[in-house]
Amino acid sequence: MHELKYKKTDSVQLSDDRTSVVIIDQTLLPNKLEYLTLTKADEMYEAIKQLRVRGAPAIGIFAAYAMAVLSKSIPSGSGFMAELERLGEYLVSSRPTAVNLSWAVSRQLALAKTLSPEAVPEALLDEAVKIHLDDISTCMAIAEYGLSLLHEGDTVLTHCNAGALATSRYGTGLGALLLGAERGIKLKAFVDETRPLLQGARLTAYELKNAGVDVSLICDNMAAYFMSKGMINAVFVGCDRVAANGDTANKIGTLGAAVAAKHFGVPFYVCCPTSTIDINCKSGDDIVIEERDGSEVAELYYAQRMAPEGIICRSPAFDVTPSELITAIITERGILRGPYDLKTI
Amino acid sequence: MHELKYKKTDSVQLSDDRTSVVIIDQTLLPNKLEYLTLTKADEMYEAIKQLRVRGAPAIGIFAAYAMAVLSKSIPSGSGFMAELERLGEYLVSSRPTAVNLSWAVSRQLALAKTLSPEAVPEALLDEAVKIHLDDISTCMAIAEYGLSLLHEGDTVLTHCNAGALATSRYGTGLGALLLGAERGIKLKAFVDETRPLLQGARLTAYELKNAGVDVSLICDNMAAYFMSKGMINAVFVGCDRVAANGDTANKIGTLGAAVAAKHFGVPFYVCCPTSTIDINCKSGDDIVIEERDGSEVAELYYAQRMAPEGIICRSPAFDVTPSELITAIITERGILRGPYDLKTI
Repeated sequence: MHELKYKKTDSVQLSDDRTSVVIIDQTLLPNKLEYLTLTKADEMYEAIKQLRVRGAPAIGIFAAYAMAVLSKSIPSGSGFMAELERLGEYLVSSRPTAVNLSWAVSRQLALAKTLSPEAVPEALLDEAVKIHLDDISTCMAIAEYGLSLLHEGDTVLTHCNAGALATSRYGTGLGALLLGAERGIKLKAFVDETRPLLQGARLTAYELKNAGVDVSLICDNMAAYFMSKGMINAVFVGCDRVAANGDTANKIGTLGAAVAAKHFGVPFYVCCPTSTIDINCKSGDDIVIEERDGSEVAELYYAQRMAPEGIICRSPAFDVTPSELITAIITERGILRGPYDLKTI
Repeated sequence: MHELKYKKTDSVQLSDDRTSVVIIDQTLLPNKLEYLTLTKADEMYEAIKQLRVRGAPAIGIFAAYAMAVLSKSIPSGSGFMAELERLGEYLVSSRPTAVNLSWAVSRQLALAKTLSPEAVPEALLDEAVKIHLDDISTCMAIAEYGLSLLHEGDTVLTHCNAGALATSRYGTGLGALLLGAERGIKLKAFVDETRPLLQGARLTAYELKNAGVDVSLICDNMAAYFMSKGMINAVFVGCDRVAANGDTANKIGTLGAAVAAKHFGVPFYVCCPTSTIDINCKSGDDIVIEERDGSEVAELYYAQRMAPEGIICRSPAFDVTPSELITAIITERGILRGPYDLKTI
């Protein structure tokens, strides 16, 4: 079995007695740090659906552990595989568009089919740990490469949440900052609050502060100001999808930060595992942007209505940053610089 | 006496019987449109202090009316001027840094000194109406010049609130849109919500919607996205101070919008009365930016805490847009284009 020492800050863990999945309930952050111990399928379903566990890699790791834990409760008779498949389908239905969720469930089911029912639980636990370790080493490599681009005393601007909560340890966009903090390298962070859902204010500020990073929270519209004052040395962001030419889709607001960085001569880095690079997608023009319900703009997270009744509110959830605005793309395999032809990766 | 027909949407008015100042209580917008009828000095003081009336020109107009109304209640004996001066000082102390407030009070006191007590109330009422009419004609001229730069069907992005609520009718940055609506010229508006205090969401969206403008509210970080899609034809903003070289201080976030506009080839217009141009200020470097309490970022207007306890929140209230990013400065005297040497204005 692989070795994995859990940390208090890991958003997904296996319980010490290996019978439950333990998660940080992300819906309560930053006001409350609460762990949930989940053993039943309906609890796990609810945790994904209600975004108690969120972030594509974190959901994948969670689902892998969940399948292993659930397999323990199934009698090892002839109906074993059918029941495990039913539970897998049930978990996947909690967030059907989450690719990592169905990927992890399928991977566990494929493994289970090759084994006798008695051997399944331990094998799936091992496999889940392996998935978890793989994600940690990917994030760790991205963090190392990112850190190599910074100097002691640098201030990094980041947007949205690409930290440990959304992945495993270190995250992607926050990797350099978190690894730097672990090594005692003094870095400062400016965190865009990231309207409308405030992932920066709620999650990134929380993670960086807990890691001991000197962090300042700002409104998204203040980033250009601090760049104009020479107070930002680099921008680090995660991303949702990278096209073959390097155009990058990420949380809405990334494009504006990239334009400002270009204008003020601040390097702009995109951090992602190579699995995020979609070589079948030629350019940003081929990326369809989800437009979310405008009520998220009018009503604010946690709060009451802020805008006139009946007003049209627009809410594109992502934007595309063209590759010419991206100084480098940092992956677990190395630092890529433009002009990008990611088909060769 | 000057002629002034009041409109329902005027944020400051004289009551029909000329004994009170009537204001829209801006703290209740956009959820409630409520007028307050003020006759006593302490009510007027409270209205300014609590931002029920806000916006530099609107405060000036309000103070001019207030002095006239208050002068009616003073016995016309030998203590008349001393009492009027005392009331003026009291009003000014409600918001000591509001230049238009002390300017209007001083102007009314200077006029009163030249008259017998019996003649003061009517003369001050006339003077207040004149100040009000002057502001309307200044805004109207800015609106006309602004409108001349737009075409039917254009979409305008605006930031913060530079409308009738903050000035008199039409406003500055919103002038072209409001005048266009009045003339049946079809224009669309995208309104930045303007974090942290959400003047765009609360006030600008409200004003434009009431005026019948096709308006969409967006988060500040979405502006670059809509520009990248070719959906914004021009940016119109008001401003707080213009330096002699054209560098312009305005609500935080203006700089980011200007940088994005430059990048995407969208014209960026600053609208202001010439009184906003400070020829003694050489460039933006000489403009000191107020930094407000970071709790405004962490706690949101109207809402509960959004960020971790103990986190540093930064909140510069304004930023400076360098003149090279400004396509034109629109004043009541005409449209100025760079390179700017505003000392000759």
